[in-house]
This record gives sequence, structure tokens and C-alpha cells, in this order.
Amino acid sequence: MIRPLETLIDELRRLPGIGRKSAERIAFHLLVGPPDVAARLAAAVAALHTSVHRCRQCGNFSTGDLCDVCSNPGRDPKTICVVGHPWEIAKIERTGAHGGLYHVLGGLISPLDEVAAKDLAIDALLARIKEEGTTEVILALEPRLEGEITGMHLFSLLKPLGVKVSQIAQGVPVGRDLEFADEVTLGRALRGRVEL
Amino acid sequence: MIRPLETLIDELRRLPGIGRKSAERIAFHLLVGPPDVAARLAAAVAALHTSVHRCRQCGNFSTGDLCDVCSNPGRDPKTICVVGHPWEIAKIERTGAHGGLYHVLGGLISPLDEVAAKDLAIDALLARIKEEGTTEVILALEPRLEGEITGMHLFSLLKPLGVKVSQIAQGVPVGRDLEFADEVTLGRALRGRVEL
Repeated sequence: MIRPLETLIDELRRLPGIGRKSAERIAFHLLVGPPDVAARLAAAVAALHTSVHRCRQCGNFSTGDLCDVCSNPGRDPKTICVVGHPWEIAKIERTGAHGGLYHVLGGLISPLDEVAAKDLAIDALLARIKEEGTTEVILALEPRLEGEITGMHLFSLLKPLGVKVSQIAQGVPVGRDLEFADEVTLGRALRGRVEL
Repeated sequence: MIRPLETLIDELRRLPGIGRKSAERIAFHLLVGPPDVAARLAAAVAALHTSVHRCRQCGNFSTGDLCDVCSNPGRDPKTICVVGHPWEIAKIERTGAHGGLYHVLGGLISPLDEVAAKDLAIDALLARIKEEGTTEVILALEPRLEGEITGMHLFSLLKPLGVKVSQIAQGVPVGRDLEFADEVTLGRALRGRVEL
């Protein structure tokens, strides 16, 4: 394989979900396709780190000092939804079910990965709650061990502040057969049942 | 989603095998990772069309006028292996089973895709055979209808030139269970059986 192709394939293989075969397929696709397709991709990748920053207030991806959510006067500033990572905000935004603000922790407490509470943006969250007069904090953390630990830790810090703390519901995913739900999920769905 | 991220996700989705979810995952990976990873990827993509050309003689990918194979004096110039696409050369080279040269047709005859014999580099192949005194042409075309049609057409043109024409063997793939081989492949493997 000639050098420029090998270099590109090596770089592509570093991306998540891309193996040797996928990397070769993408490299050849870019090479035999029109040059402007490759040029546009190169420009989009190159522009990423210079054009995207973190929101000063919540940690969301942003092109400016404040993100689209924080700078939107139509959002309810009294409700903060806490997430582990900034990309989770885009997912929640697509549901249209949250009208408040966000706060990105920058990870989850994980003894295995040596991530402790002090490594997360928790002090900033507590400061925001006091400054902004927050009335409700919604925990939208990943429904696995790290999310549970982080949620419990946050709960212990938030409750004394007199703020309402809620957690997104855990239950059976919509549109899937019940038989595919694992036992833990099904158990929580039963315990968290809602009266109709 | 903010514009620079959306732009990158759109470009990534144009790549083969990359859907919306994979594109988002890659974009976020590049964004939260060190800037030099994104910079190296951007540079590798940008360099592709300016640094990679087609070999003047065989059509292989090349950084120079002649590709690594054509410019290698150790290769047997009397044997030409004919492929449909340049990326198939890399695959054959990895086998180490071909010591001759290559010729890239630039596609396969396909009535459905409106690719006719005149759209392929067949005249150039015939000219090479006459000029280079080729003794054997190996057809390594994809084992599907388009490859068969193209192979038959080439055979009708090559046979009158007195050159030996061969085709790579079709049979059961090595290392797989026989039960997974389709009937056509298994039938050809039986008809093409080799005495031990």
C-alpha cells in the first residue's frame, strides 16, 4: 500500500467502530470519489477544535462563550438537567422533553477508571444552584454502576440545599418486546410502575 | 446540534458503512480527544487527492508516474493480472502469489449500471499485450455476473492474440465450514477439483 493511503487508513483505524477493512473501504471511497468530497471532510475535521468550545456555564459544546441552551431566554433557568458527557445533551434535546438548562459533569465517578468526585464539575454545579436559584435538579446519568454511584453522591450533596432532586425513569424501552428486557430493567420498571 | 459538529456528522455520513450514530460517535470522539488526532486525520484526508495518482501503465494507485509494481524490475513483465478496481491490487499483493504486473480495467461490464466494454481500459490492455510481449493474462475479476461477462468479453479479444488466458480459481473459501458455502460456489469447487 502506498504511503498516503496507508497514513489515512492508520488514522481512520483510530476512530471508534472503524476496523482495518472499514478504514480501507473509506480511504478508497474518498480516493476514487470527487476531490471535493474529501476536501469537505478534511475541512470539517480540521475546523472542529478551532470552532467548537465548551459553554462557560454548563459545559455543553458551543461555538460561543455560552451554548445555544444557556443563551436561550426561553429556557427555564430554575431546572438543571445533569449529564455525564456533553454529547448526551444533543440526545435529550431531540426528545423535546426538557425545557430547562443542563450541567455537564465531564464523566462519572468510576473507581475502576480512577475517576473521583473531585475530577467532575460538581463544585460548579453547586455554585450554579446557589447563584441561579435552581428549584429542581434532574439526574440524567447513564443507567449503570458509575451512573448510580455518581447519582447517589450528587443526591447527598444536593438534598441539604433544599433543591428538588429527580432521576430520569428507568424501565422497559418503548417499542421493544418485553422478552428482550433484562431482569434488572424489568424489575425497576415494575417497582417504578405509574398509576394510570 | 451546533453547526461545526452537524457539518462534520453530515460529511461522515457520506462515507460507506457510516450511519448517523457512527458519525456522531466519531465526531464526538474527535472533539473530546486531543486536537492533534483530528489534525492528523484532516491532513491525511486533505493530502489524498494531491498525493495519490494513477499509474500511467496499469492504473494502480501511485504516488509517481509509475506505480510500485510497474517500476519494480523484479516483477515478471510477461504476466499481467487483470482487475476491475485499483484497490483489488493491494489485496492480491498481500497474498504474495502474483509476481507479474497488473492492469486495472476501471470497472466491470454491467448492463444494469450502463457500463459497456468501451468504458473500460481494454484497448490499453490489448496495446500493452502487444508492446510488452505478454505471455499470460490472469483474469482476477469479481466472481459475480459482471465479472463473468467482462471475463468472457476479454477472453474473446485475447484468445486471437495467442496469449494464454487464465482465471483465478473459484471454490470454497479456506477456513470456513462447507455448510456455509453457497450451492453455486460448491458446484464450481466440485467441477474445478484438483487431483492430489
